[in-house]
Amino acid sequence: MRTEIASLGEFGLIDRLTESIKLTNESSTYGVGDDAAVLSYSSEKQVLVTTDLLMEGVHFDLTYVPFKHLGYKAAIVNFSDIYAMNGTPRQITVSLALSKRFSVEDVDALYDGIRLACQQYNVDIVGGDTSSSLTGLAISITCIGDTEKAVYRHGAKDTDLICVSGDLGAAYMGLQLLEREKSVLKDEKDLQPDFSGKEYLLERQLKPEARKDIIEKLAAANIVPTSMIDISDGLSSELLHICKQSKAGCRVYEEHIPIDYQTAVMAEEFNMNLTTCALNGGEDYELLFTVPIADHEKVSQMEGIRLIGHITKSELGCALITRDGQEFELKAQGWNPLKEEK
Amino acid sequence: MRTEIASLGEFGLIDRLTESIKLTNESSTYGVGDDAAVLSYSSEKQVLVTTDLLMEGVHFDLTYVPFKHLGYKAAIVNFSDIYAMNGTPRQITVSLALSKRFSVEDVDALYDGIRLACQQYNVDIVGGDTSSSLTGLAISITCIGDTEKAVYRHGAKDTDLICVSGDLGAAYMGLQLLEREKSVLKDEKDLQPDFSGKEYLLERQLKPEARKDIIEKLAAANIVPTSMIDISDGLSSELLHICKQSKAGCRVYEEHIPIDYQTAVMAEEFNMNLTTCALNGGEDYELLFTVPIADHEKVSQMEGIRLIGHITKSELGCALITRDGQEFELKAQGWNPLKEEK
Repeated sequence: MRTEIASLGEFGLIDRLTESIKLTNESSTYGVGDDAAVLSYSSEKQVLVTTDLLMEGVHFDLTYVPFKHLGYKAAIVNFSDIYAMNGTPRQITVSLALSKRFSVEDVDALYDGIRLACQQYNVDIVGGDTSSSLTGLAISITCIGDTEKAVYRHGAKDTDLICVSGDLGAAYMGLQLLEREKSVLKDEKDLQPDFSGKEYLLERQLKPEARKDIIEKLAAANIVPTSMIDISDGLSSELLHICKQSKAGCRVYEEHIPIDYQTAVMAEEFNMNLTTCALNGGEDYELLFTVPIADHEKVSQMEGIRLIGHITKSELGCALITRDGQEFELKAQGWNPLKEEK
Repeated sequence: MRTEIASLGEFGLIDRLTESIKLTNESSTYGVGDDAAVLSYSSEKQVLVTTDLLMEGVHFDLTYVPFKHLGYKAAIVNFSDIYAMNGTPRQITVSLALSKRFSVEDVDALYDGIRLACQQYNVDIVGGDTSSSLTGLAISITCIGDTEKAVYRHGAKDTDLICVSGDLGAAYMGLQLLEREKSVLKDEKDLQPDFSGKEYLLERQLKPEARKDIIEKLAAANIVPTSMIDISDGLSSELLHICKQSKAGCRVYEEHIPIDYQTAVMAEEFNMNLTTCALNGGEDYELLFTVPIADHEKVSQMEGIRLIGHITKSELGCALITRDGQEFELKAQGWNPLKEEK
């Protein structure tokens, strides 16, 4: 079934998408339906704002990403930025631009994914904008959150421990897998690709989660990171952000970088260097943070967190120590759509 | 001169665009450069959030809109939404998606316009996102503001007076003029169009302002509107929003709708119905609001504000009273890019 968006019009579509929305956060005073959303934050909290603009063909490929997953992920990547500030996401606004190619059912599915993410993370949809585009789909999400104590990228100090949540490189491997199947199956519409044994990689690429649990665990353990960032462009790139803004160097140990078994198998299959994938593969949405060395015991006991190295004085630069003890300068080869244009 | 964006890369471009940014608002704690901006609002204020996604070919046409004007307008339309809530804009985030067609110089000019608007209205750029697009330019701006008393669309009451700032229809006429010149001059590159005597129309289309002054005047006169909205889709459409959400009707008098002389001349030249242009031409960014009848004297003395009618009981519907006393039902024929797709 295909319903044309034009048959509803802009206001009809907005009504359809937003009619079932309920506000659950105390700070959400008024949501969709006026010139602006109205929020009420207490003075003890700092308000966090982050935004992302996702363009079809650059940030997502609808030939293998279902609309519902796309919506879910578009919301999650913004939540992740709020958690990376040691905050809690509370509200989002959602703007969509849609070409004639898309039906009301497509937008419903996209919005279902956004709503699901909002339910899982207790975030309210408070506004947005829906209009047309000449070609393709554009999604712009802004997320507002709060925190009692913002953690920035710039607070890392010499001797601080570098920690990372979860494991790295799997989302990138999931992308490689999907791209391969796309080109293999291009001319054979009826073949169903066999992804068995690779489910984790696909899930990491198609349905990532934001690390709410890590922020809660850190708070429960009374640990305030000295710096924090989420890993969207790859570990190397994010570590360099922290070191540059903290005016510091770092040493990261290859053997401590957390990598899932499926990621390793897939890298082998693709004949790719596993460490390179873990350092530079994007979209992990794990948290990278530093803690004072005094927190060593507490943090090393926390499930799902791995110590991968330590912060140094700036003069020592940023380096990876390989398994055989060699030092290599860390470089940002992260995912960068503007550079890829070359 | 043309510098390729790829030669700077994403982070290089962001650095270039944001290096000169200074934060001037007390509530702007931390701006560009981390996972999220950090804002500090006092509990007495409500926080307002509005967002707009502008797509090339739908919301703007670069064949006659200079980049600097585009940037200025993209910011202004968001400020206007904050004023329409009886608020003050404080911060914006700016996301851009750019195809290879655009140079660093183009983006500089676009950002110059955004920065100029921010300076004029004392708003801080606190974040954003820059990436590539397959075709065209997409601009997403989110504006955050504050208010001590939010004014919604839904507060209009029977017998309230309907007021509008400035004059209507000029921006629409400016657009018609630019579209005409575009088609006339399509094949004659060297001809310069003659816009003398029509400067006001072009200014209203290319460099609109948000009505900060009206919000300040109302506050100074101790008038709190019962409802308010900014006119972006045309007077009819906005009046219907107010009446629908306020569960009310209205009577608007054709003879009281404020129209500039140039708008009238241009409508004559294009053989268009002037009232239709004023009712349905979009992008005026004037404020439409209602006040209790007790404020009649105060509001009628305010410069730049015109009383155009009054709110009625819902049963009476929404109608325009023409100069010869006839009643016509108001209809929203406003600018609607989703409907235009048909």
